[in-house]
Amino acid sequence: MIYADNAATTKLDMDAFEAMRPFLLEEYGNASQPYSFSRTSRRALKDARMTIAECIGALPEEIYFTSGGTESDNWAIKMGAGCEGEVITSSIEHHAVLNSCRALERAGRSVSYLPVTREGIVCLETLESVISERTKLVSIMYVNNEVGSIQPIRELARAARQRGSCFHTDAVQGVGHIPINVQEAGVDMLSASGHKFNGPKGVGFLYIKNGTGISAFMDGGSQERQYRAGTENVAAIAAMAVALRKNCLALGEAREHLGRLERMILDRLRLSGVDFIRNGGGKGIPGNMSLSFRTMDGETLLHRLDLKGICVSTGSACDGTKTQVSHVLRAMKVPLEYARGTIRISLGVRNTEEEALRIAQSLIDILK
Amino acid sequence: MIYADNAATTKLDMDAFEAMRPFLLEEYGNASQPYSFSRTSRRALKDARMTIAECIGALPEEIYFTSGGTESDNWAIKMGAGCEGEVITSSIEHHAVLNSCRALERAGRSVSYLPVTREGIVCLETLESVISERTKLVSIMYVNNEVGSIQPIRELARAARQRGSCFHTDAVQGVGHIPINVQEAGVDMLSASGHKFNGPKGVGFLYIKNGTGISAFMDGGSQERQYRAGTENVAAIAAMAVALRKNCLALGEAREHLGRLERMILDRLRLSGVDFIRNGGGKGIPGNMSLSFRTMDGETLLHRLDLKGICVSTGSACDGTKTQVSHVLRAMKVPLEYARGTIRISLGVRNTEEEALRIAQSLIDILK
Repeated sequence: MIYADNAATTKLDMDAFEAMRPFLLEEYGNASQPYSFSRTSRRALKDARMTIAECIGALPEEIYFTSGGTESDNWAIKMGAGCEGEVITSSIEHHAVLNSCRALERAGRSVSYLPVTREGIVCLETLESVISERTKLVSIMYVNNEVGSIQPIRELARAARQRGSCFHTDAVQGVGHIPINVQEAGVDMLSASGHKFNGPKGVGFLYIKNGTGISAFMDGGSQERQYRAGTENVAAIAAMAVALRKNCLALGEAREHLGRLERMILDRLRLSGVDFIRNGGGKGIPGNMSLSFRTMDGETLLHRLDLKGICVSTGSACDGTKTQVSHVLRAMKVPLEYARGTIRISLGVRNTEEEALRIAQSLIDILK
Repeated sequence: MIYADNAATTKLDMDAFEAMRPFLLEEYGNASQPYSFSRTSRRALKDARMTIAECIGALPEEIYFTSGGTESDNWAIKMGAGCEGEVITSSIEHHAVLNSCRALERAGRSVSYLPVTREGIVCLETLESVISERTKLVSIMYVNNEVGSIQPIRELARAARQRGSCFHTDAVQGVGHIPINVQEAGVDMLSASGHKFNGPKGVGFLYIKNGTGISAFMDGGSQERQYRAGTENVAAIAAMAVALRKNCLALGEAREHLGRLERMILDRLRLSGVDFIRNGGGKGIPGNMSLSFRTMDGETLLHRLDLKGICVSTGSACDGTKTQVSHVLRAMKVPLEYARGTIRISLGVRNTEEEALRIAQSLIDILK
């Protein structure tokens, strides 16, 4: 089996698993209890918060653990939007952001969905044409999950700051894959998800810059300094921190390796004469290749590859059951005859050159 | 170490851990992806849904996986309250319910908090004196987390049904501890949390009866039949189902064992002449003993027991950092001179008779 769907989820890192194990087995104490049995759990939470903060250039108290990227996005959007003012997002966001915005609209709020370039980029000019003093929240993703395009977050965040509006970025697809520093980027909130960077599923975090006026999304006990209730999932949190640190320490290495694999696949496809385009123009995160083929629809291609033991996706994983052209490809105006035949190959550091060759050859065999 | 804080969290069952392991290690495929690698994950979700449904007398499609009891409660309260109408809850709910209700109040909604008896029970008459055709949602917990009192859910739910209002129960402290059947109880929604019945932390479920008009709390991808977005935490879900089934199959046995341990502790305390009362009158769930001592405050008692290697709590775990008399004891009108000296001993099936004796003797040594 060749796993080439790392944008959907990643294999749990073994060190991360080992970091989980004691908290699943012996150290099961509720981290919010004051007795000594819970000391190890409390320490683990503190350490994880510090590690994660370091990885993204934040302060430990600016990291809030959540159940994943979807919760982080829901929190940032629904509570970050406050009670009045306009919200701006892009037309290529993940559904966790888009559908949270739809929920705001149902509640009577005004939301603008910015168009993107053919490369899947939100231009500063586009934001500036819409943003105003009435804008309460701007939410633009760091990296698109389908085509891998990296947004000019620093410029976009600066524009938001200049208008006094809050800036959130869904960085679920970026954290652990490209260098991200919240201070340099100038964002007020940033969402991340553990299982996208070789951590476990069911855990993530929201960075909330000190001083950002946002209330809790999950009400209840006084965990996470009263901002996110619920018994702390210490095992998953500890594992997420280990995975993130490991990924962040090896970003350069990963970029080089993934770039080589990408080129191997693309070179072979081009040589074979298969008719395809690469969405996003290859300037996105390492390893992510959204390829559109003119002669076969994406779903068929996915299943033919599956028969050859290769896992890829059509659009995003969260829409794995739908077959229409994704909102991202439509926003990027990918020609329909290609858009229908789109697959996303997302490579990880575990993929080998041999696997890359097999992916390319399998595609050629299926398409020729 | 003697762990007697099972109402705060429980030790993960080893079979549940073994059920997690393959989904943490080899079977990491995103369950929403259509390729064959994810088949085992999809199957595990289906099986877990069936198992859990069977344990509480629901249909599989009425089980929605969440990140835990807090999320389930937030969902049920905030979305179950709809856009208008009144909400009724009790004054002894968990903060996940109480603070969700406070959030509704801040949004301009009317919420009534029903008083309870000295035994910590919400009487049918009390509900009937407040409920009306304007009542949209009633939320009363199945089992109180501090004193263990079991509410007359069937009667309360019937009263709600007769007025056409929706009935939710926070059963986090009941599921896996006493027999619960959603059809017999007649509830529309029920919250549960994995780690309260020897499953893992960070996972829970919300039962939503077919036909209940409630929208999603967590917006995003189309997971959980579009009602709860976010990549499915298959490992934790599979483990939760294993733990719940095991607990449910051994309820009678557990009740007998825990009853014996309770009697051993209480008999010895009484014989010793220590001045205490048992809150809730001993009619609650097996193993839960809220004891109030007149001569020492709860926090001191907790720490003295901790020094002897015994874990208990003062109030609920989520308020472990606060020292004032809990809202539950105040609502039950526990005399202040006792209420200040309250600890909760919550035993589990793993506790032995020898441990019960040591708990009793340690309390006597500290208090005499």
